[in-house]
Amino acid sequence: MTKQTLALALLLASTLHAQQPKPLTSYIDPYIGVDWGGNTFIGSAIPFGMVKLGPDMETFDHRPSGFGYSSTGSILGFSHTHLSGAQGKYGNILVMPTTGDVTPLAIASPREKETAQPGYYAATLTRYNIRAELSSTRRTGIHRYTFPASQNAHLTLDLEHCLSRGNSQGWEDQHFVGGEVHVTNLHEITGIGRYSGGWNRGGEYRVYFVLQTDAPVTTARTWTGNGSNPWKDSIPDTSTIRITNDHNATVNAETPIGAILDFKTSAQQQVHVRVGISFVSIDQARNNLREEMPTYDLDAARRNVVAQWQKQLDTIHLSGATEKQRRMIYTAIYHTMMMPVDRTGENPLWQSTEPYYDDYYAVWDTFRSSAPFLTLVAPDRERDLVRSLLNIYQHDGYMPDARSGNVTGRTQGGSNTDVMVADAYVKHLPGIDWNTALQAMIKNAEVTPADLQKEGRGGIDDYNKLGYVTNRDERSGSRTVEYSNDDYSIAEVACGLGKDDIAKKYLARSHNFENLWDKNLEEGADVNPRAKRSVPGFKGFTRPKNPDGTWAAPNKDVRGSWWSFFYEGDEWTYSLYAPHDMRRIVELSGGPEEFARRLDYTFTHGHYDVSNEPGFLLPMLYAWSSHPDHTADVLRLTLEKWFSDTRSGIPGNDDSGAMSSWLIFNTLGFYPVAGQGIYILGTPAIPESTIAVGNGKTLHIVAKNAGEDGLNRYIQSATLNGKPLNNTWFRHADIANGGELILTMGSSPSATWGKATPPPSMSDPGFKLCN
Amino acid sequence: MTKQTLALALLLASTLHAQQPKPLTSYIDPYIGVDWGGNTFIGSAIPFGMVKLGPDMETFDHRPSGFGYSSTGSILGFSHTHLSGAQGKYGNILVMPTTGDVTPLAIASPREKETAQPGYYAATLTRYNIRAELSSTRRTGIHRYTFPASQNAHLTLDLEHCLSRGNSQGWEDQHFVGGEVHVTNLHEITGIGRYSGGWNRGGEYRVYFVLQTDAPVTTARTWTGNGSNPWKDSIPDTSTIRITNDHNATVNAETPIGAILDFKTSAQQQVHVRVGISFVSIDQARNNLREEMPTYDLDAARRNVVAQWQKQLDTIHLSGATEKQRRMIYTAIYHTMMMPVDRTGENPLWQSTEPYYDDYYAVWDTFRSSAPFLTLVAPDRERDLVRSLLNIYQHDGYMPDARSGNVTGRTQGGSNTDVMVADAYVKHLPGIDWNTALQAMIKNAEVTPADLQKEGRGGIDDYNKLGYVTNRDERSGSRTVEYSNDDYSIAEVACGLGKDDIAKKYLARSHNFENLWDKNLEEGADVNPRAKRSVPGFKGFTRPKNPDGTWAAPNKDVRGSWWSFFYEGDEWTYSLYAPHDMRRIVELSGGPEEFARRLDYTFTHGHYDVSNEPGFLLPMLYAWSSHPDHTADVLRLTLEKWFSDTRSGIPGNDDSGAMSSWLIFNTLGFYPVAGQGIYILGTPAIPESTIAVGNGKTLHIVAKNAGEDGLNRYIQSATLNGKPLNNTWFRHADIANGGELILTMGSSPSATWGKATPPPSMSDPGFKLCN
Repeated sequence: MTKQTLALALLLASTLHAQQPKPLTSYIDPYIGVDWGGNTFIGSAIPFGMVKLGPDMETFDHRPSGFGYSSTGSILGFSHTHLSGAQGKYGNILVMPTTGDVTPLAIASPREKETAQPGYYAATLTRYNIRAELSSTRRTGIHRYTFPASQNAHLTLDLEHCLSRGNSQGWEDQHFVGGEVHVTNLHEITGIGRYSGGWNRGGEYRVYFVLQTDAPVTTARTWTGNGSNPWKDSIPDTSTIRITNDHNATVNAETPIGAILDFKTSAQQQVHVRVGISFVSIDQARNNLREEMPTYDLDAARRNVVAQWQKQLDTIHLSGATEKQRRMIYTAIYHTMMMPVDRTGENPLWQSTEPYYDDYYAVWDTFRSSAPFLTLVAPDRERDLVRSLLNIYQHDGYMPDARSGNVTGRTQGGSNTDVMVADAYVKHLPGIDWNTALQAMIKNAEVTPADLQKEGRGGIDDYNKLGYVTNRDERSGSRTVEYSNDDYSIAEVACGLGKDDIAKKYLARSHNFENLWDKNLEEGADVNPRAKRSVPGFKGFTRPKNPDGTWAAPNKDVRGSWWSFFYEGDEWTYSLYAPHDMRRIVELSGGPEEFARRLDYTFTHGHYDVSNEPGFLLPMLYAWSSHPDHTADVLRLTLEKWFSDTRSGIPGNDDSGAMSSWLIFNTLGFYPVAGQGIYILGTPAIPESTIAVGNGKTLHIVAKNAGEDGLNRYIQSATLNGKPLNNTWFRHADIANGGELILTMGSSPSATWGKATPPPSMSDPGFKLCN
Repeated sequence: MTKQTLALALLLASTLHAQQPKPLTSYIDPYIGVDWGGNTFIGSAIPFGMVKLGPDMETFDHRPSGFGYSSTGSILGFSHTHLSGAQGKYGNILVMPTTGDVTPLAIASPREKETAQPGYYAATLTRYNIRAELSSTRRTGIHRYTFPASQNAHLTLDLEHCLSRGNSQGWEDQHFVGGEVHVTNLHEITGIGRYSGGWNRGGEYRVYFVLQTDAPVTTARTWTGNGSNPWKDSIPDTSTIRITNDHNATVNAETPIGAILDFKTSAQQQVHVRVGISFVSIDQARNNLREEMPTYDLDAARRNVVAQWQKQLDTIHLSGATEKQRRMIYTAIYHTMMMPVDRTGENPLWQSTEPYYDDYYAVWDTFRSSAPFLTLVAPDRERDLVRSLLNIYQHDGYMPDARSGNVTGRTQGGSNTDVMVADAYVKHLPGIDWNTALQAMIKNAEVTPADLQKEGRGGIDDYNKLGYVTNRDERSGSRTVEYSNDDYSIAEVACGLGKDDIAKKYLARSHNFENLWDKNLEEGADVNPRAKRSVPGFKGFTRPKNPDGTWAAPNKDVRGSWWSFFYEGDEWTYSLYAPHDMRRIVELSGGPEEFARRLDYTFTHGHYDVSNEPGFLLPMLYAWSSHPDHTADVLRLTLEKWFSDTRSGIPGNDDSGAMSSWLIFNTLGFYPVAGQGIYILGTPAIPESTIAVGNGKTLHIVAKNAGEDGLNRYIQSATLNGKPLNNTWFRHADIANGGELILTMGSSPSATWGKATPPPSMSDPGFKLCN
């Protein structure tokens, strides 16, 4: 072979190689959404994995959490627990390799040559010229550090470190409250860290660890400081740190504590660290290490993580999708499956053989799209998530809306678990004790919680007596309309279980959203003082009521304030919130044409906020209007503006994958009405998708003429399982055992398609529960 | 050659071909920013071209302008005048090919196979199966329509059509006020359209046209309707349209009027249309056609447009940039050079040999970055833009802040032309009559305009008497601080011209920003009612004053309202607005450390709005603080979040390229302090750039270690023209004749670099004008 021919052949070979299908995990880009508050996790974790080992960074204002990932220059170290699509908790057991003299709390290093992939993170710590690599299993982390030649090499452990300290003036701060460190031998450190607070204002949680290393350690030291929180101000106070040769250290306050292992390295010497984590005991941490990380094999761990993600991604296959769309969809699956966290066997509070999950953040965020998504592609997982909620109910008294660090709270809305349970119920998820589930739902609906930010339904006394939460309680508007939907969920399950009296009672209550509807309240009229007034406003909005039944001032609170009438949404969003009775909302709004005008106004006047969940269903509401085609317009523009395959590619906090799951559904072209077993068609952006719906069955979606550019975004005609589908919606039962949805897309709205029968509503003539 | 070897060779050839440099114009993606209010133009135009021939669309709510380009499914036709990075005017002389029966105003067609490139637009009108292609020259448009076989083919002309009708309830609506159409022979239509209103609430402007076609026309018809505006409601009213065989039609009200040419076509028959446009007369429109479009050669026109853009793009060469960065930068140049529009020779108001530009939209938007950008890379163009302003001053009485359709108005701030003139002056732009310029500036400063929305400085009586605009005038806060900066600009020019008394007078006035500074006004303290209060607020904000000198209520207006205290910015932005005296602002804010904390708070608490110009300079203000490195953090995150190479890739209205020029400077790594001949260094994202600065000289920027990922975003050290540069800033004079800026970038902030001497301020010890 001549040299030239060889070059040609190599070129050909590389081209052919490039044409082979890439593994789906190669489409995962963990960086999507790390910035601008997407808060997605960077590091190694298996699906729903307890250990999330990744770097903690210095931020913009030199704190260990905050203004977005890429705003930071320096790595503080690598800790073993993190949230994803959330912030304000964890960051426990921080390990950092260094060279030279060590000043605890002042060892951060800039990084370069960084890479983040499923099951793998690597960066070079330029201050020390150390290459750091990370991987993990469910409950352990593995570190590989490649050192330069050094007479003065170290591994450091910072137990006091945790995220979200001093950021919120005491309100949602996390605190280190004490702990102990034991150098059991020159290759092992064990200990306990105790932490409290964080986003859910939780009580103390304990993290037990066993850290082992194959480094040639010659001496070990520990260190403590005084009782102040060094992160109150931007620059950590290292003046009180004392390093000693003691092999044991204990503190009982928010004071620095840690350990240093000293050794020498030759150039390119690799040092491994493996860390077993447990929420139960040091023994169990050691056990986890023995079971899951018997050797220091980072590469094997990484292969295992990738294999587990591959299995999850394998549920969705795309044809005709662009590379960008694939990156977005597969990364969205990855992000949706980061939390809640499988802590089965790691519950320090009670013994049970039931699944135990932590880090529900929060069901209020995830019940709308994440839960229906898991029900569709990972029904066993969703079953376990529901069973875990019921198990917590049985031991703690309530299903949690939110839970983190083994502590329930803070409730965002009320008992939105009711909808999550009903969604599983109407979709016939097997393996759940529905009678217990109904009990738990009724507890939500009837028993006033001691702390309305912790569990249950706040303001339930007024709601059950008067039919609405009064404005003496926070979030009384969003709570009232959500409780109505929750009550509908209870009615559904009760009806299915043959408990007609219960069903009847809660069905009656599910009308309650109407009790705060002020039909005379008008907004949206032209208020330009110099223009001729020619555009009328919209009449009828949800409005606060006083305990005596009189109207209070209309809501003008800042959107999203904790103490406002509505939570994370405004009157335009919440006034239309009754997913179980949109027919009635349309009537109240003046009929389908006026309702379409109102939705148009909402979207074109800045009242639609896809970065918070209350608006998730809003684009689909056109299905009840005279313009179902506007759903396609709104979805296309929303996806185009707020989602991308970049670091700022998630519109707001991913909320444990809520945003990501919204993206998946709306790219594939349909979206669930949570709790009701209904999907509404949107506008598929991918010509062909195949979704594994369990038991080897698949839902096959063909969208003829569809594409990323969105030009052909209007459905012209549809068939479902071979029969014409003239409505914008279908039932879960139609696809539960697989199915085929064939859509013909076009570049202008169809005059007729989708206008036959709107999706079901409680006010429909002839409506019956258990339909 | 064997078949296999041939394949290999072809493969090699195609690979080699791909490695050849692409023409810079291939990086222009006109779609960047068309959606979500970027409002960039789609169609054909030369740089600063008068004719902008492109499609007009039906929008979301079925109007001929509004909610963004891709939200529309159907094309109404192709009109010859448009804004870019703006909306609310033009859309004149609408041509649409059709087949079958014609119902004027109801001939819109969905489109497919659309492409938009410099000098070229094409789409298939699916309703008619007609391929439409467009190109243009400075003052003419050329259309090529490929018809199917049809016994009933047509070209239609809609004179009544214009954009932005019935959208703003009369406030900024555009109106058709009358016109005439003449079929002079079966291959030519001439006429006049008269229009008024639009974004600048301007009086009548007239568009003259001569339309010629090579279609085999057999009959010609005209049509008129009654006097109603058919676009008041969503669906056009076609019931009153009358089509006749008359070859002449005239209307004198807002009533439909147009013409139809009828012919037959064979399959794939190409029909051409060329349209000469003039703002002066039909004769001149015909002349423009003769001069610029002597044949129906669309391809030649297209090549000419591309060549003209290539010349503009050739001013910036990038090395080590990603394809995405190139698309963004070169498209940004394209968008920056769409407007103002060169109407030299097309001024219907007075005769002059001076350059005449229209569509200043608005100097208030563009003086900050677009004007300095043109001064740098296209000094002759900037010279002409300034000369045109002076020419308008001489005939109309004031330099316009904003102007469109030959009518001055609506002023956004006040006389920000003062800064634009000063910027050109301090950068020694040749060919400008500076004495006239100073006269024009003084007129702004001294003579109360009859209408403060039209020209001059509103509230100037109070300002000149009391030292601030009082809250009896709109925008009194933004006006006061901007007038201070405007006065500084006057002082600079006066000083340079040796008019010391004038310079002294205006230098004294340029302190006026301080007169609205309330040192006791505090904002930003923690207001969480349940948290311990531990974070103090920031003291000292610009606050409204009553005419009697007492403080009025602090500003809580909705950002950007026309009638508010501040325009398109809030108190966090405007309180720091004194580009000529930041030293004083820093003192008032509590010193460099507190000033950095205040800026941090501004950026992290949602007070920074890059989609409006008042905040353009804000990231650079860290140069006066104790943390110049934070500029890099803020710029990286802002670019990442708000700019991209997609349809939603511009954060807000491009404002005639203001956003685009901000992007260019901040990607290259420096940003101008308009009016002062100073540039502040940011964080280059491209390793090497070469900028042609006129006369064959180049500015060569090397940013070692820099990249799109932003990891190495902190300047560690710098040299300018071979000498160490330890400050964050340099002067235009340092690079006016070319130069070399070499930056070494790193992944963490330098402890020392950039902290030596902040950029100049009027309050600096030893400060002198004309320095």
